[in-house]
Amino acid sequence: MDIISETRCFDGVQGVYMHASSVCACDMTFAVYLPPEAKDGPVPCLWYLSGLTCTHENAMTKAGLQAHAAELGLAIVFPDTSPRGDKVADDEAYDLGKGAGFYVDAREAPWAAHFKMESYIVRELRTLVEAEFPVADRHGITGHSMGGHGALTLAMNHPDLFQSLSAFAPISNPTRSEWGRKQLAAYLGTNESLWADHDATALLKTKGWKGDILVDQGASDKFLDLLNPEALASALFETRTPSVIRMQEGYDHSYYFVSSFGADHMAWHAERLFA
Amino acid sequence: MDIISETRCFDGVQGVYMHASSVCACDMTFAVYLPPEAKDGPVPCLWYLSGLTCTHENAMTKAGLQAHAAELGLAIVFPDTSPRGDKVADDEAYDLGKGAGFYVDAREAPWAAHFKMESYIVRELRTLVEAEFPVADRHGITGHSMGGHGALTLAMNHPDLFQSLSAFAPISNPTRSEWGRKQLAAYLGTNESLWADHDATALLKTKGWKGDILVDQGASDKFLDLLNPEALASALFETRTPSVIRMQEGYDHSYYFVSSFGADHMAWHAERLFA
Repeated sequence: MDIISETRCFDGVQGVYMHASSVCACDMTFAVYLPPEAKDGPVPCLWYLSGLTCTHENAMTKAGLQAHAAELGLAIVFPDTSPRGDKVADDEAYDLGKGAGFYVDAREAPWAAHFKMESYIVRELRTLVEAEFPVADRHGITGHSMGGHGALTLAMNHPDLFQSLSAFAPISNPTRSEWGRKQLAAYLGTNESLWADHDATALLKTKGWKGDILVDQGASDKFLDLLNPEALASALFETRTPSVIRMQEGYDHSYYFVSSFGADHMAWHAERLFA
Repeated sequence: MDIISETRCFDGVQGVYMHASSVCACDMTFAVYLPPEAKDGPVPCLWYLSGLTCTHENAMTKAGLQAHAAELGLAIVFPDTSPRGDKVADDEAYDLGKGAGFYVDAREAPWAAHFKMESYIVRELRTLVEAEFPVADRHGITGHSMGGHGALTLAMNHPDLFQSLSAFAPISNPTRSEWGRKQLAAYLGTNESLWADHDATALLKTKGWKGDILVDQGASDKFLDLLNPEALASALFETRTPSVIRMQEGYDHSYYFVSSFGADHMAWHAERLFA
């Protein structure tokens, strides 16, 4: 693992790192924020998954989560959203290929060679973070848009790995959305029975989630018809999943929305990870 | 209007009153809590509508709202849930007739003579409260179960009368529930087109609500299949209605549930009524 940069931030350290990923068969970059408390021993760790077109950098620089992480004593990991590099397949569309990994392990050509974002995050990067950073065995997961989809689906598919869960404006029902159907078909193939395990609305009704869930959604988000939060709201309540779901008046899909409710989400995770 | 009792409570007054209702054609009892601030001038007013089998008394004695009302400076009105008296029609079932007015104006015999709970609350009792008590022209509405249904539907049907709205475990989609279909058929007749204006889920998609809505629901509520909160959750998000909806782990349908989240609801209303 190479250190790209380490910068003092709220009395802790915002670092950016690169490593050779065997799972994605390419170099991968990620960021970790360590709060000041990490100098004294392991701290709980929140995974923040980003949305379409993002790298590890967008939320790191724009979401303002470090202030809250420092106050609460949480580490934050910001993974990339796809494999990278000249050898990695891509598509002209912004929502397929690089920057659009959708947190699944691709099975279809040309994607299967590198696009293994589910295994990358829950297996390879998890192991690396646990080995290289002072994080306790208490992990939460959140994310925005495609990353909210990732947080919800990775948590429900790997419940032993995560103790807290939230999402900002998640892609909520990708098997019924143009943000989802195209990508799941490309990565997993046209057999839709393989898609259900990567759809938060469907997963609530099959595997469910062991804990409670916080979801925020902006009411002025121009992507609402693609995100389909009403399907998630209905599924959360139909399955009686303990949850707080909020339609936030006037907020859009930007990082201003994420930063506005970042404190609430960080407190949500801290309350559960320190329990 | 006769004073049945007035009792000092959190430095304010909990009163119970009776009046001859012309709308319901019977004597009606109701309760009003006035906070200490009401001695100095008009205060905003929260209407609390109760559920099946209740009178004005259940929430007044068991919900513990007066402590918060005193702190925040809100009055609370607790109406009865149906007309009362020997001349008033009833049914053997607990969920039809007395104690089960459903906050509609009945059109069918034998109910139409007295069961006019919508007009009673929004017209007659509203006028009486405004004339007899120091309440400002700022009103919120909430309620529990059938009363949550009442709060949601009366607010959406009379938006000029209410500036804030919340509900505890509301009957959310009565046109699709056994808590609703029987009563709406009895009171309004079998023409289901008349029912939609008394169904919160349907109203969100037609008239909608001008502001935001707080809804709490217990995840261990044994009436969940009758309440159908997932329909309301879906409609709130589908219509992009600003809202906070919470599935509360372990809580049932009792006043212990209402009292546990009473402070949150009172604060919600105070924030909007004092805005």
